[in-house]
Amino acid sequence: MDFTLDQRLADSSHLVIRSDDIQVRLADDSRYVWLLLIPEKAAAEEIHDLTGDLRDRLFTLAAHLGGWMKTTFTADKINVAAIGNMVPQLHLHIVARRHGDAAWPGPIWGHGEPVPLSETERQRLTAAIATFLETGETG
Amino acid sequence: MDFTLDQRLADSSHLVIRSDDIQVRLADDSRYVWLLLIPEKAAAEEIHDLTGDLRDRLFTLAAHLGGWMKTTFTADKINVAAIGNMVPQLHLHIVARRHGDAAWPGPIWGHGEPVPLSETERQRLTAAIATFLETGETG
Repeated sequence: MDFTLDQRLADSSHLVIRSDDIQVRLADDSRYVWLLLIPEKAAAEEIHDLTGDLRDRLFTLAAHLGGWMKTTFTADKINVAAIGNMVPQLHLHIVARRHGDAAWPGPIWGHGEPVPLSETERQRLTAAIATFLETGETG
Repeated sequence: MDFTLDQRLADSSHLVIRSDDIQVRLADDSRYVWLLLIPEKAAAEEIHDLTGDLRDRLFTLAAHLGGWMKTTFTADKINVAAIGNMVPQLHLHIVARRHGDAAWPGPIWGHGEPVPLSETERQRLTAAIATFLETGETG
């Protein structure tokens, strides 16, 4: 069975880059810098559905991006979560949180309505993330 | 610097077992089967504060427990999250979620008030988790 991205994830986020069978996507919500990592494994809904190798790559990537996001976006905390109560296809959230952001200190999921990114914001963030992942440098 | 468990985590959960520098704790809330994994690394607040080796052990353990919890507690979804906006010491939540539980389908964090476990529930859950981790079998 081939991997197909859930339509709700496709509609609410933008593909930034593919890294080793993992889609790095930018959530379409300007209230936070919010990434989704989605392993391209058919039918995976839980972390325990991944092989050890893919799980390791997923969390290595999450740590790499989280460290960069904390510095680059002067975040107070990085939130990392696989929830999926609404959209079961496995997707890992990585969110740069700041004191005083829309949901602080609560979780972002289910809090208010998304505020779509402007085209300029989307391009700027996408380029910065892709540059970091491709070169290890802050773009 | 030595590791010291944050008092708020100590007060709201019970130690089940130590596994390879990671505390496995049971949250004192009977609304969910809810574990906390806490790496005993001083000053760690983010996943990217862990070495690759400890990060790998943390998520290997999380996957192992998550798979067991899904079956044992007939969960509909396992939620795995490192949030820490209130208590920054790194702690990974693993929660067995069911349709119709107290917060379903929303996240559990910040939802209502904890309902402490009875002594019997606490003992039963603690024994089941410890037996699984020590023997790989469902207790």
